[in-house]
Amino acid sequence: MPIKLYYDLMSQPSRCLYILFKFIKCDFESKYVDLRKAEHYTEEYAKINRFQRVPVIDHNGFVLTESVAILKYLSREGIIPENLYPRESKRQARVEEFLEWQHMELRLPCAFYFRTKYLEPVMFGTKPSPQRISGFEQRMEQALTNFSTKWLGRGSDFVTGDAVTVADLIAICELEQPRMAGYDPREKFPVINEWYQKVRNHFNPYYDEAHVIVNKVIAKQAKLASKL
Amino acid sequence: MPIKLYYDLMSQPSRCLYILFKFIKCDFESKYVDLRKAEHYTEEYAKINRFQRVPVIDHNGFVLTESVAILKYLSREGIIPENLYPRESKRQARVEEFLEWQHMELRLPCAFYFRTKYLEPVMFGTKPSPQRISGFEQRMEQALTNFSTKWLGRGSDFVTGDAVTVADLIAICELEQPRMAGYDPREKFPVINEWYQKVRNHFNPYYDEAHVIVNKVIAKQAKLASKL
Repeated sequence: MPIKLYYDLMSQPSRCLYILFKFIKCDFESKYVDLRKAEHYTEEYAKINRFQRVPVIDHNGFVLTESVAILKYLSREGIIPENLYPRESKRQARVEEFLEWQHMELRLPCAFYFRTKYLEPVMFGTKPSPQRISGFEQRMEQALTNFSTKWLGRGSDFVTGDAVTVADLIAICELEQPRMAGYDPREKFPVINEWYQKVRNHFNPYYDEAHVIVNKVIAKQAKLASKL
Repeated sequence: MPIKLYYDLMSQPSRCLYILFKFIKCDFESKYVDLRKAEHYTEEYAKINRFQRVPVIDHNGFVLTESVAILKYLSREGIIPENLYPRESKRQARVEEFLEWQHMELRLPCAFYFRTKYLEPVMFGTKPSPQRISGFEQRMEQALTNFSTKWLGRGSDFVTGDAVTVADLIAICELEQPRMAGYDPREKFPVINEWYQKVRNHFNPYYDEAHVIVNKVIAKQAKLASKL
């Protein structure tokens, strides 16, 4: 039975798993959960994932949530190849060090910025104050500085060394969120820009395929901003 | 060479590793990093951990940060026994599902509350408004409700089943942080209280030993509150 993937391409870890499955040619059953229609809040979906979020996998009846835990599981099960998720203990630890770091240090500040500047106004009609946006932007820029200097910019091409891994894929999908809110991390951070192109190319055409809707939002936001 | 552990017992994941090492009788070299003296911000410490945080381990020259990544590494290296960190893939995935979930869903709300109500006033002399504290308290209570009903309270004794694992140890250490700020999760959540006693007993005398300073802060705060 193919793995079932419950996802929405507006969700960054969903995109990560979607791209990964396509890239490694892992046949999966697509279970689209439309977040904009609040399908994750239905009773039916709560039976699948009591946390009512995406992504989720169902592997022969074993249902698992949390993208990082899913990556680890798929690696152990031999579904993610070793080059993308090292098996050697110390190299694996370096990838996992990043996977743990990014929750609070990259994802959180990018997601807060996205939510405050883009998502809440769209969903609830709120208008955040410039001070509020600026506060979240500052925290995000500190995070991007750390990502650019403490992970990248240390002489290697990718997050944990000279080979692309799931760490790069998790990171790049996060960086698309602020772009939807009109902030492009690639503009202020040349090291991030260089890395971004390499990772995107590596996972293309699937990277661009997974980002079709995201890129539409980015283009629409850019058009709106140019009219201001 | 024994593992070097860089830690401060005011840091919840530091306490987790400290208790674990003592409990499994793993000889370690104690490297105390006094956060209150800002020793983590020294140049010397930045050479050990570029993120300037605790805990960190040094295992025969391999330096690793991020408590969850450390737990995984120590499990792979056979240092954490199987009963505390399952090796079987699906049981391991359940523990890791929690380890990933807790970053944003338990740690963050507990830490925000602790920082706003206790740490910032102590460190910077700020006085948070009752509204601000109440906002953080509400988010923390939602998190505690989720922890109490979606992990505990499902018919098993511990976070991921009928045996105590590193998931319980990570969780219980987090719940001490709001206690230092005068909020005891055990009072409103009987399921948490019952679980707390079991986990604490399991890891005692090391649990109480690691919490001597934390318990002094809790007692001092309770005394201050009773005078209000």
